[in-house]
Amino acid sequence: MRRILVIGVGAGDPEHITMQAVTALRQVDVFFVLDKGEVKQELVDLREEILRRYAPDGDYRVVYGRDPERDRTTDAYVEAVDDWRRRRADVCQQMITDELADGQTGAFLVWGDPTLYDSTLAILDDIATRGFELDIEVIPGISSVSALVARHRVPLNQVGKPVQITTGRRLAEHWPSDVDDVVVMLDARTAFTGYQDADIYWGAYIGTPDEILISGKLSEVADEIVAKRAEARQRKGWIMDTYLLRRIQPGQDS
Amino acid sequence: MRRILVIGVGAGDPEHITMQAVTALRQVDVFFVLDKGEVKQELVDLREEILRRYAPDGDYRVVYGRDPERDRTTDAYVEAVDDWRRRRADVCQQMITDELADGQTGAFLVWGDPTLYDSTLAILDDIATRGFELDIEVIPGISSVSALVARHRVPLNQVGKPVQITTGRRLAEHWPSDVDDVVVMLDARTAFTGYQDADIYWGAYIGTPDEILISGKLSEVADEIVAKRAEARQRKGWIMDTYLLRRIQPGQDS
Ligand SMILES: C[S@@+](CC[C@H](N)C(=O)[O-])C[C@H]1O[C@@H](n2cnc3c(N)ncnc32)[C@H](O)[C@@H]1O
Ligand SMILES: C[S@@+](CC[C@H](N)C(=O)[O-])C[C@H]1O[C@@H](n2cnc3c(N)ncnc32)[C@H](O)[C@@H]1O
Repeated sequence: MRRILVIGVGAGDPEHITMQAVTALRQVDVFFVLDKGEVKQELVDLREEILRRYAPDGDYRVVYGRDPERDRTTDAYVEAVDDWRRRRADVCQQMITDELADGQTGAFLVWGDPTLYDSTLAILDDIATRGFELDIEVIPGISSVSALVARHRVPLNQVGKPVQITTGRRLAEHWPSDVDDVVVMLDARTAFTGYQDADIYWGAYIGTPDEILISGKLSEVADEIVAKRAEARQRKGWIMDTYLLRRIQPGQDS
Repeated sequence: MRRILVIGVGAGDPEHITMQAVTALRQVDVFFVLDKGEVKQELVDLREEILRRYAPDGDYRVVYGRDPERDRTTDAYVEAVDDWRRRRADVCQQMITDELADGQTGAFLVWGDPTLYDSTLAILDDIATRGFELDIEVIPGISSVSALVARHRVPLNQVGKPVQITTGRRLAEHWPSDVDDVVVMLDARTAFTGYQDADIYWGAYIGTPDEILISGKLSEVADEIVAKRAEARQRKGWIMDTYLLRRIQPGQDS
């Protein structure tokens, strides 16, 4: 039986790593990386920095697989992602078969928390349903959501109230029902510009030296965020941003 | 100016602690503890274990304040919590004034992630609005939500879909709109028993030696969870449990 660790490494700051993750790193024979041919060199650097810092005498190998392209031309989002996942599962299964001996431990290092908007678990699940048995262990990590609100020093939820985590694609459609607090990830379209009556706590490149934080009433800071976001994205060639929208309705039932 | 660190220590396993938290622990002059006169001796032990392990040569003091009682007789939940927070702020402000010199660093160790259903940030905010200036820094931690889904090895969200984090009190009222995935905390009433058509991923005492994990279709495992929960609560005198409900609707728009 092959053992696979799915290790959350935190959302940008190498010090987000947990002791549990460090202990796990040191047991790994082979790290698997789906290589996106990334422009995001910093993300590759962070992974290497983590291995250098926390597994310095590591007797491990790093194996790269070619990440297949996702079909971004179609409107069928879920189908495109499903198809992409299957092709990634093919690549991962091949890497594991070729490079990991029975009894050895392989690992995937996952950005943030491995359970939040990340496909590694789904890929491994896909492989498992093919009858290829793996012993999987998941090490939680600091998500960009936790990192965001920590940096803004605000609670994620209001007292006794719920919070929803969603995508920019969905926020662009409508404000979700039944919640005043919404965290938005994967937003390429600055969907917050469709709203007025909320506070926003926005962060880009959180935990990294390029971190940008802006907060305030949406009506007052939305334009500034749009401008800073465009400028940073232009300058670095990529952006990762997350935000919390908090609708505060005085006197409202809560 | 006094510096206050609000440090997330993870949700049960001492190894949940991050490197950032360890670095922070070692800068602390005074740890403040609101003493609940706890039956939950294990929680007190965990805090001590963390200090022993990760700040072994620590030149720090631990100061205890008496946690005021919350009014649990009233139905006015938010008002009762507001009032409680103000009285806790009184106690904390007093401790900080009495025990922390200007230029020193104080800290609160917070269970899980300090931004999720925890009042420490609100208490410090309350103190700040009184004009008592503090330099606050928040260190994110592994929440019980991340720990739960990691132990069950399932993603928190379905592809491209939202997830809501809420309380047992609210789930007992109705299933939240616009989401198929709901994480429930602070549930003293096993509110999941009001539902049928979902998978449940349940965990109690996650990350501790007493951890219990149960998952399956609600219709098949709800009774077992209710029984195990009651038995464990009886045996230990307290319980902390969290669960994810996942409604899977085949063919549904997503
Ligand atoms: C594919 S998801 C991965 C999320 C990751 N698993 C986590 O727990 O944060 C990528 C999204 O996460 C958010 N994100 C990740 N890291 C971030 C960072 N350092 N700063 C801001 N947003 C970040 C952005 O919303 C981005 O679009
Ligand atoms: C006051 S809230 C604090 C949450 C904490 N800040 C966090 O990030 O997990 C307490 C609730 O957290 C959940 N919880 C905390 N630790 C847990 C654990 N080890 N196992 C299961 N549930 C836990 C339970 O739902 C409990 O009612």
